[in-house]
Amino acid sequence: MDQIFHEIIIKTNGQGLYDFTQKTISWINKQKISNGILNINILHTSASLVIQENADPDVLYDLKNFFDKLAPMDNQLYKHTTEGKDDMPAHIKSALTNNQLTLSFKNKKLMLGDWQGLYLFEHRLEEHARTLTHHLIGD
Amino acid sequence: MDQIFHEIIIKTNGQGLYDFTQKTISWINKQKISNGILNINILHTSASLVIQENADPDVLYDLKNFFDKLAPMDNQLYKHTTEGKDDMPAHIKSALTNNQLTLSFKNKKLMLGDWQGLYLFEHRLEEHARTLTHHLIGD
Amino acid sequence: MDQIFHEIIIKTNGQGLYDFTQKTISWINKQKISNGILNINILHTSASLVIQENADPDVLYDLKNFFDKLAPMDNQLYKHTTEGKDDMPAHIKSALTNNQLTLSFKNKKLMLGDWQGLYLFEHRLEEHARTLTHHLIGD
Repeated sequence: MDQIFHEIIIKTNGQGLYDFTQKTISWINKQKISNGILNINILHTSASLVIQENADPDVLYDLKNFFDKLAPMDNQLYKHTTEGKDDMPAHIKSALTNNQLTLSFKNKKLMLGDWQGLYLFEHRLEEHARTLTHHLIGD
Repeated sequence: MDQIFHEIIIKTNGQGLYDFTQKTISWINKQKISNGILNINILHTSASLVIQENADPDVLYDLKNFFDKLAPMDNQLYKHTTEGKDDMPAHIKSALTNNQLTLSFKNKKLMLGDWQGLYLFEHRLEEHARTLTHHLIGD
Repeated sequence: MDQIFHEIIIKTNGQGLYDFTQKTISWINKQKISNGILNINILHTSASLVIQENADPDVLYDLKNFFDKLAPMDNQLYKHTTEGKDDMPAHIKSALTNNQLTLSFKNKKLMLGDWQGLYLFEHRLEEHARTLTHHLIGD
């Protein structure tokens, strides 16, 4: 069995979903493990991970919009307001989605559906550099 | 270490939670791996996976009902409406639950609580055939 | 490859987030596996798991408060009421968060962000003893 650890940095520029599918696949293609598990963790609690449709950008718009209405940026709703009006909603949206994704890959191919993409879901308003760990274990 | 890949197809007939616990356990019982990880991924973004109570069917009814009220089938709420009034709510419900589950098994027994079952959560109104990948890695 | 199975019991005393990060890290430190995956499952469907900010306790308060408003303890909203007004909301909150977390560890260090902690999210009002399985696989 082999294990390989790697980090991907994704720069974000405000709220929204950032597709990192190709970054991850390009990295896997360079490794010598052919079958195994890819564990992805985001090392933050104000941005998160989702697997979502990669076809119609309107889906991504509606997702962002839904979560904004569900956890509004209104300081009167929260005690934790010291880091800005977007921080507590960001923690809530993170709790409602995922901090980590565990994927399988077979014959070097990540097992995703045809319409599935891997997204970083940024919940903060300002620019950030987000760290995603990639851990391959297999063969 | 051994790895085994498998697919389970679950036919759905409208919204609701479909128990696939026994299908998964039956398959594990036929494999020669005794201890390891079972990674389950659903290859769709308009149906999802949850671990939920397997005792009272009212829990499943209330869950479906809660998510329907949270993400209503109302085209006026969304930009993505080309695939029907149930599609964008389905993507939202998928983002709120899980695309994948990673389970442990020990001595060929899946480590679930007594009241836990594995459910496919179908969010679309029409009939679908949903693909769930099963990936065993262990021993 | 080695595998080690373990259970952690966490006693809860009403709703809220219970930090178990140190319990998990202390256990890992005693094991002989240095690199691998730690799969954590909670064997209940009325309490759940989240990775959240470990700095400001107000974040934990706001999270609990948000979920309480999203899934109110009001028997008129649900069919499943036989186990008390807090039970069906607990199942909903569990579905909205996580039953399991899959983490990577490298050189015996759990790969978490500086501000990330592991929390049991108790959704019931009464005292409970919650079982969390820990499954290490690696090296």
